Amino acid sequence: MGKAGLPVSPLAPARFPDLPVIAGIDFASAAAGVKYQGRTDVTLIRIAPGSSVAGAFTRSSTRAACVLDNQAKLAAGGDAPQGAAIVINSGNANAFTGARGQESVDAVTGAVASALDLPRGRVFSSSTGVIGEPLPHDRIVAVIGDLVAGLDAGGVAGAAQAIMTTDTFPKGASAVVEAEGGQVRIAGIAKGSGMIAPDMATMLVYLFTDARVPADLLQQALSSGLDATFNAITVDSDTSTSDALILAATGQAESAPITDLGTDTGRAFVSALHGVMRDLAHQVVRDGEGATKFVEVAVTGAASDADAHKVAMAIANSPLVKTAIAGQDANWGRIVAAVGKSGAEADRDRLRISFGDMVLAENGWRAPGYDEAAASAYMKNQDLRIGVDLGLGSGARTVWTCDLTHGYIDINADYRS
Amino acid sequence: MGKAGLPVSPLAPARFPDLPVIAGIDFASAAAGVKYQGRTDVTLIRIAPGSSVAGAFTRSSTRAACVLDNQAKLAAGGDAPQGAAIVINSGNANAFTGARGQESVDAVTGAVASALDLPRGRVFSSSTGVIGEPLPHDRIVAVIGDLVAGLDAGGVAGAAQAIMTTDTFPKGASAVVEAEGGQVRIAGIAKGSGMIAPDMATMLVYLFTDARVPADLLQQALSSGLDATFNAITVDSDTSTSDALILAATGQAESAPITDLGTDTGRAFVSALHGVMRDLAHQVVRDGEGATKFVEVAVTGAASDADAHKVAMAIANSPLVKTAIAGQDANWGRIVAAVGKSGAEADRDRLRISFGDMVLAENGWRAPGYDEAAASAYMKNQDLRIGVDLGLGSGARTVWTCDLTHGYIDINADYRS
Repeated sequence: MGKAGLPVSPLAPARFPDLPVIAGIDFASAAAGVKYQGRTDVTLIRIAPGSSVAGAFTRSSTRAACVLDNQAKLAAGGDAPQGAAIVINSGNANAFTGARGQESVDAVTGAVASALDLPRGRVFSSSTGVIGEPLPHDRIVAVIGDLVAGLDAGGVAGAAQAIMTTDTFPKGASAVVEAEGGQVRIAGIAKGSGMIAPDMATMLVYLFTDARVPADLLQQALSSGLDATFNAITVDSDTSTSDALILAATGQAESAPITDLGTDTGRAFVSALHGVMRDLAHQVVRDGEGATKFVEVAVTGAASDADAHKVAMAIANSPLVKTAIAGQDANWGRIVAAVGKSGAEADRDRLRISFGDMVLAENGWRAPGYDEAAASAYMKNQDLRIGVDLGLGSGARTVWTCDLTHGYIDINADYRS
Repeated sequence: MGKAGLPVSPLAPARFPDLPVIAGIDFASAAAGVKYQGRTDVTLIRIAPGSSVAGAFTRSSTRAACVLDNQAKLAAGGDAPQGAAIVINSGNANAFTGARGQESVDAVTGAVASALDLPRGRVFSSSTGVIGEPLPHDRIVAVIGDLVAGLDAGGVAGAAQAIMTTDTFPKGASAVVEAEGGQVRIAGIAKGSGMIAPDMATMLVYLFTDARVPADLLQQALSSGLDATFNAITVDSDTSTSDALILAATGQAESAPITDLGTDTGRAFVSALHGVMRDLAHQVVRDGEGATKFVEVAVTGAASDADAHKVAMAIANSPLVKTAIAGQDANWGRIVAAVGKSGAEADRDRLRISFGDMVLAENGWRAPGYDEAAASAYMKNQDLRIGVDLGLGSGARTVWTCDLTHGYIDINADYRS
């Protein structure tokens, strides 16, 4: 069972992966009783002196106090000569909590700064859970001493557990890059299950590497990967107030510093980083609230990439497409309707729709070899691929989503209570 | 039970209203077995010579053959000196059926034109049901003789039944206008339950009046009412391939012709017409697939009307807001998140959110008098009103939606089969 008492997603990986230790990063988690009882709900992450930090955050106009605070702190630059820290709580989003929200952020990050002897401007924070209720920050401040005492380079799995809300499994991913002078390691954790339609950022995601990368290049490596990873997933079209991704590079690997992303090492690092981001993004979808199917929607032949994105998201967010998938119904007519409503340039008579390798419709109608029985059999797979070619240009976009089931209604008709 | 075997919506009116007879309009319905068995599924509507006709249709780029055909025919003007007709089938949308789709439209409308001695260009048609399957138009053509023999000015209730798909109740509305020289009557029927997010048009809606109104003014009276009625409803954010509204004015009332919409009579007519349109739009929402709550979302104080529309639709289409309403949970934090993701200009600290007359949040946080018990009690009402004031300008927009329940999943996870 997951932390919220929900059965583990049928799409969950068999187990939490073995993540490499990232020299210079320590984790600790504790049970502060922010909302949940009998489980860990606060995580502290210490980032060693000499690291650099990058971030990406939701573009929601009602974003949470901690998001605004992180953005303000990172606007001053990503260098952390004296080190940095991240403090995260689940159970309360500290969003839409007015001036009180910032007071809570100040109380928690101030206490961490004191305990770790860090500048306040290098203590980042995240809160996830219900919106609009005051954060009982005293409960978090009360466990900071215990957290500091428990900091451990091997605590990453516990951290991935503590940040869960309606998640049914902890999410981690890693990569090792053969860089000039030695190996570079990347490890990350994420949480997210509902309110998933990231806008230029992510759910809560924390990525760590022992590479030495200057803050501006680190931000560039991160930003260039967002569109094809976290911004390409949707569970329910609802963008969160609290999406946040923080990436820290400690520089403690033996390899040479990365000072140019265009070198072999630079490209290998960026590619591995984006691979870890994609893996975590997929895990968020695989833990989509109520999900029983993992669905790739690949749009090609659009007039532009922007049009391809519109079409892919119109399909991935269509309740009618998602319920058909839940029902294992090869109802490709609903995909036609979603293309039509997307607002993108489309020509009914050039449209081609495929499931896996099977072409269902082309030239404005059912494909000549259309086989309803084969299409229905395909829908019984757990991982599905919907291909849409618009036949107009070279715009392309792939996004990932899950189905819409009774489980989603169960979870969200009384999540708060 | 409704026609699709579904229990009648708890939001349904007690009974189908008594609609006034519109002189010059006759209805007939028959069972052609297009898809459903043991129920009527084809309707013929005859419009008397000397009438004028107006229409509004979906802007989907994958719109159905009959929609394209209607648009082409109305582009030539709305006068019908020799009369007109509408033929409608349920059970098959004749959408995404390529060249075969237009052949089906020609076969059906051609047969009606012959049977009623009408120009083919004055026979309109609609098809509603599954997308992507060829329309068995021979079955429809085979019952046209029976339909013509059964034409009857009192057949409107039967027509409202025959056009249903997943609808659980037939929808009708009417108005009587005191016009210069006598009364003018307006009557309309509609179908719609899922795939409801009309874009510049409607579901299937047919409106009739015995007023004498030139075609251009009739179109103007219709078009000016769309934004605040059918374009202001959403069940599931999925815009149909087949939305169509046709309005016919027979001119058989005793009152003087309406030659100016700005006169007292003209304004009264437009107001009554829009009232009938709003009534039918609300009935479509009240028959939203799986609906148990009727929800008005009223946005005020936006920087522009367009921004107010974005915010209202972001709330009305949010799965998290809609499942909270289904769960009778006063989870206004999800409304904050929906405002944030809408893309409209918003300032967290000026936002005010109310349920009915109760202010829940203002100035960026819970209202001082916030009463969780009272808010929860309010959510038990069947008809709900969510008010959002953005505190920025004078832009305003009201839209209507329903909740998202297990019933929606039930209906759509295996509607086609």
